[in-house]
Amino acid sequence: MTGWTLAYDAFVPEEEGLREALTSTGNGYVCARGTAEWQDVGEVHYPGTYTHGGLNRETTIVGGRAVLNEDLVNLPNWLVLKLCIEDDEPFRLDNVEILNYRHEYDIRLATVSRTLRFRDRSGRVTTLASRRFVSMAQRHLSGIEWVITPENWSGRVQVITALDSRVTNSGVSRYQQLEGRHLDPLLPRTFGPDVIGLKARTRHSQIHVGQAARTCVYDAAGVPLDVERKLFQMEDYIHQTVSFRVSERTPVRVEKMATLFNSRDHAISEPLWTAAKTASRASTFAEAYESHARSWGELWERCDVDVPGDERVQLLLHLHISHILQVCSRHTTDLDAGVPARGLNGEAYRGHIFWDELFIYPFFNYRLPEVTRSLLMYRCRRLDEARASAADHGYQGAMFPWQSGSDGSEETQVVHLNPLSGRWDPDLSHNQRHVNASIFYSIWHYYQATDDMEFLSRYGAEVMLEITRFWASAAWFNPERERYEIHGVMGPDEFHEKYPGASEAGLRNNAYTNVMVAWLAEVAVKMLELLPVRRRRRVQDAIGLTDGEIQTWDDLSRRMYVPFHGDGIISQFEGYEDLDEFDQELYRQKYGDIKRLDRILRAEGDTPDRFKLAKQADTLMLFFLFGDSELKKIFDRLGYGYAEDTARKNIAYYAARTTHGSTLSYIVHSHTLAAVDETASWEMFLTALESDVGDVQGGTTAEGIHLGVMAGTLDVLQRGYLGIDSSGDLLRFSPRQVARLDGVSLLMRFRDSVLRVSIRGDRLVVSRVDDSSHPIWVSVDESIQHTRAGQSHEFVLHR
Amino acid sequence: MTGWTLAYDAFVPEEEGLREALTSTGNGYVCARGTAEWQDVGEVHYPGTYTHGGLNRETTIVGGRAVLNEDLVNLPNWLVLKLCIEDDEPFRLDNVEILNYRHEYDIRLATVSRTLRFRDRSGRVTTLASRRFVSMAQRHLSGIEWVITPENWSGRVQVITALDSRVTNSGVSRYQQLEGRHLDPLLPRTFGPDVIGLKARTRHSQIHVGQAARTCVYDAAGVPLDVERKLFQMEDYIHQTVSFRVSERTPVRVEKMATLFNSRDHAISEPLWTAAKTASRASTFAEAYESHARSWGELWERCDVDVPGDERVQLLLHLHISHILQVCSRHTTDLDAGVPARGLNGEAYRGHIFWDELFIYPFFNYRLPEVTRSLLMYRCRRLDEARASAADHGYQGAMFPWQSGSDGSEETQVVHLNPLSGRWDPDLSHNQRHVNASIFYSIWHYYQATDDMEFLSRYGAEVMLEITRFWASAAWFNPERERYEIHGVMGPDEFHEKYPGASEAGLRNNAYTNVMVAWLAEVAVKMLELLPVRRRRRVQDAIGLTDGEIQTWDDLSRRMYVPFHGDGIISQFEGYEDLDEFDQELYRQKYGDIKRLDRILRAEGDTPDRFKLAKQADTLMLFFLFGDSELKKIFDRLGYGYAEDTARKNIAYYAARTTHGSTLSYIVHSHTLAAVDETASWEMFLTALESDVGDVQGGTTAEGIHLGVMAGTLDVLQRGYLGIDSSGDLLRFSPRQVARLDGVSLLMRFRDSVLRVSIRGDRLVVSRVDDSSHPIWVSVDESIQHTRAGQSHEFVLHR
Repeated sequence: MTGWTLAYDAFVPEEEGLREALTSTGNGYVCARGTAEWQDVGEVHYPGTYTHGGLNRETTIVGGRAVLNEDLVNLPNWLVLKLCIEDDEPFRLDNVEILNYRHEYDIRLATVSRTLRFRDRSGRVTTLASRRFVSMAQRHLSGIEWVITPENWSGRVQVITALDSRVTNSGVSRYQQLEGRHLDPLLPRTFGPDVIGLKARTRHSQIHVGQAARTCVYDAAGVPLDVERKLFQMEDYIHQTVSFRVSERTPVRVEKMATLFNSRDHAISEPLWTAAKTASRASTFAEAYESHARSWGELWERCDVDVPGDERVQLLLHLHISHILQVCSRHTTDLDAGVPARGLNGEAYRGHIFWDELFIYPFFNYRLPEVTRSLLMYRCRRLDEARASAADHGYQGAMFPWQSGSDGSEETQVVHLNPLSGRWDPDLSHNQRHVNASIFYSIWHYYQATDDMEFLSRYGAEVMLEITRFWASAAWFNPERERYEIHGVMGPDEFHEKYPGASEAGLRNNAYTNVMVAWLAEVAVKMLELLPVRRRRRVQDAIGLTDGEIQTWDDLSRRMYVPFHGDGIISQFEGYEDLDEFDQELYRQKYGDIKRLDRILRAEGDTPDRFKLAKQADTLMLFFLFGDSELKKIFDRLGYGYAEDTARKNIAYYAARTTHGSTLSYIVHSHTLAAVDETASWEMFLTALESDVGDVQGGTTAEGIHLGVMAGTLDVLQRGYLGIDSSGDLLRFSPRQVARLDGVSLLMRFRDSVLRVSIRGDRLVVSRVDDSSHPIWVSVDESIQHTRAGQSHEFVLHR
Repeated sequence: MTGWTLAYDAFVPEEEGLREALTSTGNGYVCARGTAEWQDVGEVHYPGTYTHGGLNRETTIVGGRAVLNEDLVNLPNWLVLKLCIEDDEPFRLDNVEILNYRHEYDIRLATVSRTLRFRDRSGRVTTLASRRFVSMAQRHLSGIEWVITPENWSGRVQVITALDSRVTNSGVSRYQQLEGRHLDPLLPRTFGPDVIGLKARTRHSQIHVGQAARTCVYDAAGVPLDVERKLFQMEDYIHQTVSFRVSERTPVRVEKMATLFNSRDHAISEPLWTAAKTASRASTFAEAYESHARSWGELWERCDVDVPGDERVQLLLHLHISHILQVCSRHTTDLDAGVPARGLNGEAYRGHIFWDELFIYPFFNYRLPEVTRSLLMYRCRRLDEARASAADHGYQGAMFPWQSGSDGSEETQVVHLNPLSGRWDPDLSHNQRHVNASIFYSIWHYYQATDDMEFLSRYGAEVMLEITRFWASAAWFNPERERYEIHGVMGPDEFHEKYPGASEAGLRNNAYTNVMVAWLAEVAVKMLELLPVRRRRRVQDAIGLTDGEIQTWDDLSRRMYVPFHGDGIISQFEGYEDLDEFDQELYRQKYGDIKRLDRILRAEGDTPDRFKLAKQADTLMLFFLFGDSELKKIFDRLGYGYAEDTARKNIAYYAARTTHGSTLSYIVHSHTLAAVDETASWEMFLTALESDVGDVQGGTTAEGIHLGVMAGTLDVLQRGYLGIDSSGDLLRFSPRQVARLDGVSLLMRFRDSVLRVSIRGDRLVVSRVDDSSHPIWVSVDESIQHTRAGQSHEFVLHR
């Protein structure tokens, strides 16, 4: 099917890590990625990782000191299936002659299929076709199906079906110094003749994990075969050997249905018992797969984006949607789970939560807002920890961490391994306090898109107020400038952690941060006025918010300091203009890829601190998060000019000085460029789309996909290109790239309406497909329409 | 304050269990009940019990066989505080002379205060005043404050502050044969000078529990005293001895702030560490109490019911509301917790979930519907288990259990200890399949009251359909009668488990069950039509529902068999009329209290099966759950007559034959009597109100309050007496007891409106106090009004 399949027709060992990351299968609760099934059964790759986030917090060790916490833990491996023909050793890819190989990924149903035809040392030719899925219908269930066809022989085969808790976190090579063992074995058990089970416990958080599997064998007509079963078990491993006869050219089907529960799950008594009970009740692979397919069908109906004009773009958008929904699905809405930067299919960043959610929410806000809500609840539940952190640092309010895990405390590393020099350099990135602005922004924009006053008033408002309070306490009024300043922080650009040669960390007046603070201080006051009167009083009482503070916030929104230099360029931070220009060309000639110039320069004994250089979009975040007219209002309120060419000039200025060392940067640049250079923007969009599939950073995709970028590409389409803006009471569209997007069609939710939005030629069509009685206002460029259920409006695009 | 305090002015050892049950303090997450603090520090009473329901499932043993599962487990005791004056032994109530004693319960803030003035053996007179609360603001926090005043002496005192996991479930004497130990100790630990911690693990479910306490001492001005601390710890116990000097007539304040976390909690890394961190950050008792009071204030604003005309009724309604909110609060909405029959403040029924929720939801539906929703989600999450149970018994759809615990499987005891004979008799009560009708009813009525289509369509509908399917498969079409029949079940009346002398369990055609099935079969079809088209298709596909089944349901709703006898009496079940009449007077003379006639008769070698007798309302449930006009529609559709006097006749018939062996029966009878005999109804209402405070069953309150009855009294007021009915699209009132209720005022929610409802003289006043733009229709008797935000309507009551 066009646009729905990722396929590899040859086995290339050195590409397997990447392929596995790209073709994992998950359901938000668990993710399966693994070649253990065949390639090298002795070694386990990513057998399945939990939704981190509250589920775990494992201490890792560097040089004997516990410095980091992991929140993503590889689980006991349920993928292990081995095939022995007659009394031969189990087949592996390296002990047979491979005649055909195909590794296919059905994007629509997140299903991995592999077909292999091989000749063993005795000349027997066998075809082995496998399919594997993690159920989107039943989150505790997954299945593997093998079809074994002996092509030129008959005889007895043994299938070894195992559960194995001897797994480690070892998928990221530069973490090799960290402790990778996070599971303690508990016990193996059998439940009746065909169910095996295994229980393990995470080492720090002591979460119990119960796994069970039922393996059955069927003939071509679906009749269960008479098999002989033998058991082998150790403390941390259990397997059954299932042996049976096969006949030449007669396929036999092996089904392994596996279940997984942990001690945090609802509606269980004890995880191993529940896993075994569920496995013994599990339906056949085909039935389970059918309900899995129905659930995915419902998700696609909500979330698909049609881009008929460009097959490659369509394929990659499908791939991205598929991965996003494997990490955050309806199954996560009742978990206390945040969204890790690398999804669930790789160990990089150890499952930590950064700010990537900022790039992920817009996709969900308009499709599955309950997912945004649950991810925001993950933050709300950690408000007390953020309050304690602010207090510990001498601030008021709540200061959310740059990197965090289960309990919401700061987990940012304090040293960082530079692979180029082999040295552990100091890491100051925890000064990225701007994450606090992004959480505020995300709550507000979720509310704007959904009108969910219940969430805002009961949970979100308090977080917004405490964040505002934090910023107010971090800001310092400079009487000479008569402006508020914020010192000692970093923007998103990690090339600048401090001033060159400075002993203290952080910078003065990062423009992105200061403008966000001005904006959020105004919104906080406005939000308070929106709350129902009683609720407002309750919230204010609960946190002891005074009128004086609210007055200060209003003042902040008018008098934050923003540095400028040159002709209308917003300085990334105060003193930026004094930095040296950097000769990118020179370094590109010398090193080729200079995305991670920080590592190159530090290995040379230099530092990026002293150059006008950015690892990723920093000042441009403003143009990414706000439309031109909203930004103008913020600057006007601050008493700074905002000229017609402010956006264009700043975008050009920083585009020339950014190395895109984070792929998130492509998202910001393609979005902001859309308004000033559609072609450049489209190229950047394509780069972002290809970044994981093409592994543009040379190895990072194998360590986990970049979920913020994947979701970001969809957001470039909706907010960047269709120009969707729900920050007012009406839903605005300001389309760009109209020619390239001809035929685009997507479904979106806005408050309680459901809209089909499409571009046909020079028309943008908006159709209400819900049956709510509430009218909404829709505007396209200057034209505004009142839209009721069932109505459809065509807007002519003047471009 | 009038109507808000329960007080006891003398210490009566044999009444302490009852007093402790009535004056416990909880927040939905945990409940503290205990006299360990003073009375007898060597023995622990109910130190605090978890919200059961998913949190636990402990196997208990009868005669060596594991037959039951417990879901309510006593936790490590944090109440232990002991006082030693000079080098004396710790004071206890039995080693001092008590000069004054007062045990007071502040209903509004669920706070237990005790004041004690005593003279010890050395003639020293001391006043000790304690206050204790479990925070309604921070669910993991609780606190005890002691004020010690030496009246005629100065000297050194020691306060021993402990955490103790050597606790058992031993509060119900007839469970003594069951295993009462549910905790395995893990370890004690200290965190800095003033925080002690203790960790334990539940034995079956292996939930880890971390507890910590910080104890500080202050002088009268609030300045921390210089104290000396000594530590003592064992595997399962830890204490600090805090010693300091006190001076004659100078009060000193001791504060013990305790925290509790378990491994299922959100936003934690590990429960002991989190408990210790939270304890070390905890504010003072006064600050924590202030925020506790604010949270209760918000709850009372929503939930209070004013009954100014009757001080006793007012007091008891307050007490009931206070207890309901201690078991089900906003803190339970993100727990996977059901509502146990005895709340959290007693061990009877071992924390199991029965059908009591049916009596509890109406209170929440109109006040905190999110609580109903979360309790219904508890059922929805156990749908798979109910499906498995149906299949195991040869039915289709889902069959929910009569008693259940954490994983939703059937936990009803199969033997029952008769305290009168000391024998374990067979127990067939699991045949109360009517719980499946009540779950259906509750989902539908929650939807009616809230219009929460998101819940209905995503979760509730599937449960409703599977329950309907279960009943359709349980029903058998009798071609002779041309009616559907259901055999082998019991109604709520547990006096009739089977026909006299029959070998098989269950009865034929329990009228309550059959009419409920007719009703729900019709609603199921109607509900399907209400669902959004796509959602309906998804749900039908997911469970494979056929048009043929829907046709059968429609048929069921028209042709269920209902037995009648005599002159328009609905027979409780088929063959009821052949039973013997029972001479209650005779037995009352012989035994006094005959509520539990079943035990009396069985001890005599007889059985209640053979009499026209009911332990509790059975047929009358119909008149309780439905209004007269709705019931008439159901009977009309079935082709049975429903005369004007059907209600009156049946109510009188069964009232004469019911012993009220379950206090729930008072609720049903006072509600149904309201329409036919206001005075009799009011008396029954008063009995229900007094039933826990007066411990009318002679000892059962000490084993835990009766939450269904407590909530039921509030429901008698709203549905029974104000006649509130939201089963249509308008909100109806049909007031009764107008004279007795003069001055009544309450706040209620209906869909997105908030209404103040009050009776003043012969007027019923309904005022909209929300600011929603949706108008609603309100009717009182025959008069209908269209009500918008801010509007108020006075209806004249013609009585």
